[in-house]
Amino acid sequence: MNKIKVGILGATGMVGQRFVQLLENHPWFEVTELAASERSAGKTYGQVMEGRWKLSADIPAYARARPIKECLPNLDCKVVFSALDADVAGEIEGNFARHGYIVSSNARNYRMEPDVPLLIPEVNPEHLKLVPLQKKNRNSSGFIVTNPNCTTIHMVLALKPLMQFGLSQVMVTSMQALSGAGYPGVPSLDILDNVLPFIGGEEEKVQSETLKLLGSFNGAGVTNADMVVSASCNRVNVNDGHTEAVSVRLDKKPSLSEIVAAMEAFNPLKELKLPMSPDHPIIVRRESNRPQPKLDRTVEKGMASVVGRVRECPVMSYKFTVVGHNTIRGAAGAAILNAELMKTQGYLE
Amino acid sequence: MNKIKVGILGATGMVGQRFVQLLENHPWFEVTELAASERSAGKTYGQVMEGRWKLSADIPAYARARPIKECLPNLDCKVVFSALDADVAGEIEGNFARHGYIVSSNARNYRMEPDVPLLIPEVNPEHLKLVPLQKKNRNSSGFIVTNPNCTTIHMVLALKPLMQFGLSQVMVTSMQALSGAGYPGVPSLDILDNVLPFIGGEEEKVQSETLKLLGSFNGAGVTNADMVVSASCNRVNVNDGHTEAVSVRLDKKPSLSEIVAAMEAFNPLKELKLPMSPDHPIIVRRESNRPQPKLDRTVEKGMASVVGRVRECPVMSYKFTVVGHNTIRGAAGAAILNAELMKTQGYLE
Amino acid sequence: MNKIKVGILGATGMVGQRFVQLLENHPWFEVTELAASERSAGKTYGQVMEGRWKLSADIPAYARARPIKECLPNLDCKVVFSALDADVAGEIEGNFARHGYIVSSNARNYRMEPDVPLLIPEVNPEHLKLVPLQKKNRNSSGFIVTNPNCTTIHMVLALKPLMQFGLSQVMVTSMQALSGAGYPGVPSLDILDNVLPFIGGEEEKVQSETLKLLGSFNGAGVTNADMVVSASCNRVNVNDGHTEAVSVRLDKKPSLSEIVAAMEAFNPLKELKLPMSPDHPIIVRRESNRPQPKLDRTVEKGMASVVGRVRECPVMSYKFTVVGHNTIRGAAGAAILNAELMKTQGYLE
Amino acid sequence: MNKIKVGILGATGMVGQRFVQLLENHPWFEVTELAASERSAGKTYGQVMEGRWKLSADIPAYARARPIKECLPNLDCKVVFSALDADVAGEIEGNFARHGYIVSSNARNYRMEPDVPLLIPEVNPEHLKLVPLQKKNRNSSGFIVTNPNCTTIHMVLALKPLMQFGLSQVMVTSMQALSGAGYPGVPSLDILDNVLPFIGGEEEKVQSETLKLLGSFNGAGVTNADMVVSASCNRVNVNDGHTEAVSVRLDKKPSLSEIVAAMEAFNPLKELKLPMSPDHPIIVRRESNRPQPKLDRTVEKGMASVVGRVRECPVMSYKFTVVGHNTIRGAAGAAILNAELMKTQGYLE
Repeated sequence: MNKIKVGILGATGMVGQRFVQLLENHPWFEVTELAASERSAGKTYGQVMEGRWKLSADIPAYARARPIKECLPNLDCKVVFSALDADVAGEIEGNFARHGYIVSSNARNYRMEPDVPLLIPEVNPEHLKLVPLQKKNRNSSGFIVTNPNCTTIHMVLALKPLMQFGLSQVMVTSMQALSGAGYPGVPSLDILDNVLPFIGGEEEKVQSETLKLLGSFNGAGVTNADMVVSASCNRVNVNDGHTEAVSVRLDKKPSLSEIVAAMEAFNPLKELKLPMSPDHPIIVRRESNRPQPKLDRTVEKGMASVVGRVRECPVMSYKFTVVGHNTIRGAAGAAILNAELMKTQGYLE
Repeated sequence: MNKIKVGILGATGMVGQRFVQLLENHPWFEVTELAASERSAGKTYGQVMEGRWKLSADIPAYARARPIKECLPNLDCKVVFSALDADVAGEIEGNFARHGYIVSSNARNYRMEPDVPLLIPEVNPEHLKLVPLQKKNRNSSGFIVTNPNCTTIHMVLALKPLMQFGLSQVMVTSMQALSGAGYPGVPSLDILDNVLPFIGGEEEKVQSETLKLLGSFNGAGVTNADMVVSASCNRVNVNDGHTEAVSVRLDKKPSLSEIVAAMEAFNPLKELKLPMSPDHPIIVRRESNRPQPKLDRTVEKGMASVVGRVRECPVMSYKFTVVGHNTIRGAAGAAILNAELMKTQGYLE
Repeated sequence: MNKIKVGILGATGMVGQRFVQLLENHPWFEVTELAASERSAGKTYGQVMEGRWKLSADIPAYARARPIKECLPNLDCKVVFSALDADVAGEIEGNFARHGYIVSSNARNYRMEPDVPLLIPEVNPEHLKLVPLQKKNRNSSGFIVTNPNCTTIHMVLALKPLMQFGLSQVMVTSMQALSGAGYPGVPSLDILDNVLPFIGGEEEKVQSETLKLLGSFNGAGVTNADMVVSASCNRVNVNDGHTEAVSVRLDKKPSLSEIVAAMEAFNPLKELKLPMSPDHPIIVRRESNRPQPKLDRTVEKGMASVVGRVRECPVMSYKFTVVGHNTIRGAAGAAILNAELMKTQGYLE
Repeated sequence: MNKIKVGILGATGMVGQRFVQLLENHPWFEVTELAASERSAGKTYGQVMEGRWKLSADIPAYARARPIKECLPNLDCKVVFSALDADVAGEIEGNFARHGYIVSSNARNYRMEPDVPLLIPEVNPEHLKLVPLQKKNRNSSGFIVTNPNCTTIHMVLALKPLMQFGLSQVMVTSMQALSGAGYPGVPSLDILDNVLPFIGGEEEKVQSETLKLLGSFNGAGVTNADMVVSASCNRVNVNDGHTEAVSVRLDKKPSLSEIVAAMEAFNPLKELKLPMSPDHPIIVRRESNRPQPKLDRTVEKGMASVVGRVRECPVMSYKFTVVGHNTIRGAAGAAILNAELMKTQGYLE
């Protein structure tokens, strides 16, 4: 099989680095283009990343000597993965889609557009049906598909199997890792021996994206889920892995064991055997002191959401903790999994 | 004025050290006795604390040469402050009370006993009326007064002024500091680059103590507040200062500005001028990224609760963050303030 | 006594904040001017510092409402304390000196100029005799006096009493705190769970400044000390307080107890009673595991160098560890102490 | 090929866990026995390790259900890897050797015994010739081989190729990771925002072990290398990976490029193709800010020593920084590599 040519937009940032790492030796995709801002363009990836590569393994050999190009729609590839910052992603991604590229984006800009899928393959694959509407609306040969915010995605994975129990309210307090803020991101003087009780725009994203993700495709768009979400987002001194304390109201009053069983049985993509897909999207730990970001963020290669401490909530119905990797399943891995799903559904032809 | 003689039980632990530090040069109290476990007894405090004193300033001179005694009711003092571990506090504190001592305890053992005050001077000073009942019940010349758990106390200080608005539900997720676990406490390998999603017994304490603290004295005991509390307690890599994300349901639907005004106006002890009392028990910050433990834990000498991010909650009514020092107002300072209130109310005569 | 009017140049950075904090209620100096870069000028200090004030106590009241001015020599003061970055300090400080101001600078730009004192009051007060030479050389009514780099100063304080023993070689490996890099400084992703083995320009400063500081005034300039210094500088995940492992060759072969006695006896400024002067410039700890930055950085209000682990060195003569606060005695406090010495020596008249 | 049966003594501690992890799927060795203290014996490894397994990946499946035995010489295996604590290792390891087992030990107890090899395969493989002497001396059918202390091993790997240049003096300041102290090890309150300037016994080990490792086998024992070493050992807030600032005196005055070339060419085991052997035992980085423990500790699966900042030393000849993984190449991986070398040299028959 010929591999599909893919490019990475914003390849030098924290999420861009994860794309570069995760796409090494991908069975379906071949990275043919690396693009970044104008001031990096023209140099090789190895030159630009000297002192900026922050992942523990080294820069993959395939990327090191590759020249960085500008983010212009003249790249030799069919799909572009976008790790662009929100201040430039809107214009660049739109431009690529108009020129026929398929854009799998981690940026927030298009997530809430009515004709753009905000996609988690296990949660709402039918939202891909927005694609033809989008192409028609925008008179565009390419299109954009987005993945959710890193905090939203792990919570929604854990919530999806609870929808059958009448999920009507969600309260979440997040303790988010530093890599979510990019690089240079959070100054060390601000976070050593500290908690930051605020992350700009984060609570709004969690509160709104969840409703679209758990909503249903109605033929002409997505009807938001009928529920309400409240988020309190905090930054803690952790490198990778967001921790979220979640409480839910479940109107149908399931038992605790029914909830755990539903989470553990949740594996709707099992038959598709997507390369990035975890064997178990949700792992439920029984130990009293799990999940922990340090121990659980890399399970299933960072693509699973690890749940623990499922117990009754005196105010709502149940509460639990979920931990997940924020730049793998929460960003680059999410966009790659989205593209894998698109391929199996015929969207990359 | 002759100062009142006081002793410290469990003077060598983290909270014991705070007692030693905070009682240096106290205007009303004079530390005449330091007591700890049998294996420390007989040595001087300076000898025992070599390598174990963890507060940044040095051991106060008054304590250094003082011999450590056993925790037996033959100490030369009227009041004992107890920083004992729960596994020994029950027996020792009971023994001191029976022998006529006034015990101001930070241990959890007697907190929920029906005839023992669980006291925050600004919140429920009338619960001191349990003291004569306790003395009678237990046929004891001394008595025990307790302060709440370190997480509970800062939350309850912030909640008390909201009682007037029909407070019926509370959800709290805590991000707690390491000093709350004592010494040696949390191993560094467990918390570096990590969050621990569980603290044994903590959620139960927050959920039950809050109801007693906000309850009312009914002549024969305390009637719990008519509300429900749900707590999720986490450990984060912070030295001192607990951070708590709190959501509240307020049935009378006050405006946001009414809430803030109520918190800022809350200062019921103002006239008493207690030595440890903060000028403002609740400080409300307006900046988007406050309160933070690193910046706010030592305001008002660690005796205030610092609130910020007061905003609407999509699920309940309002949410906010509260930060407070866990071993000062959350432990040793709380017990000293309790004793100060007792003195002004005639309980130390 | 009328206080001497002083200004702070670069008042908004990490060292600038320390100047603002340490000069509150100074008995000899009154801050009449706060100056910073053009883009801060015109706003009040409180406005500009919202979210940027990084010290645990709040912004001092005296500074909060004060307008920030540009760093131009039209300020109403006699002395300016400079916390300017090196890229602008050269021009601005020179300009102030030419216009008659006395500049007490923490910047590196003029430190190694032959006619500029690089001063530690306890170490080389006679270097102030460079001032008349400087004024004549530069045909200037004002002048510049500098304090050393934060790593150098604590090491040199510990070395000065060893000069009598024939100090000929020094090896130092530093483990430096984050606040030394300013704000935003070191990104948290770079230092969490890490050591950075390089600090740009730092080793050269330690190696050269030490020779000038320990050198002697020869009537026309300073003759460098006849010794050689090798420094290896590292950044560690500590907020404040540099730790330095030092080995020295002492040609006169003193005993270990002679060394310790010399350090402890070292207090040449004792009689001057300068306000910022520590009671003991060098404190020698006997415990096996001291000094530690967390426990020792604030002793003597951050103005002392704390030495410990004095022991024989198998390769050189002796080795020891020294800890000291890098933004107090290592920066702002150093410049203030320099000005205090200048006042007592008649340089501020 | 039938695999050789091996056991792990002290399988539950930090180093024991690394043995369990690194021996999974080893091509030559099969773990047939896990042993630990009496109080763990009888339970399965999975039961005992609940909440104690500290490595990010999960407990290997092969180990989970295996029963833990006591450390008695009735185990069904030929080789035992010892991760025992020093307080019990002396007796237990001696007992195993007397009963015919081959002991590859990470404990310090026998390292400096004249008839026991202290072995780094790339450095001093000829020291294995001590084995027949040991067996004869001790009238024992088995024998003990040891690997050095975790700090020593990475320094000595970097020093070995410098021996040809007349290495006569070494100064090292270490910044050591937390996992080196075992579990629970360093309390978090001691290391957050801190450096500990002392590690009990560590400096002595580095100073003495280096001389034996770089010494030569003389037919009847090992003649220590003719050099002197001075070590200053510190604990920093890093999970894994020791950082060491090293200065060396080289009497033959090589050029800097000769030193780097010698380090990079150093690969004496290349032809043996040992399973745990790194492709490059010493990696030399050219970037100004490498090596760093966070980025370099896992290169070559944690079996390499990563050198950087090679530069002239004003006091001695050259200085550099070396980083290496302390529980892989510094402990469990070292003992496994030792056993692999022994196998190829016929010592396991």
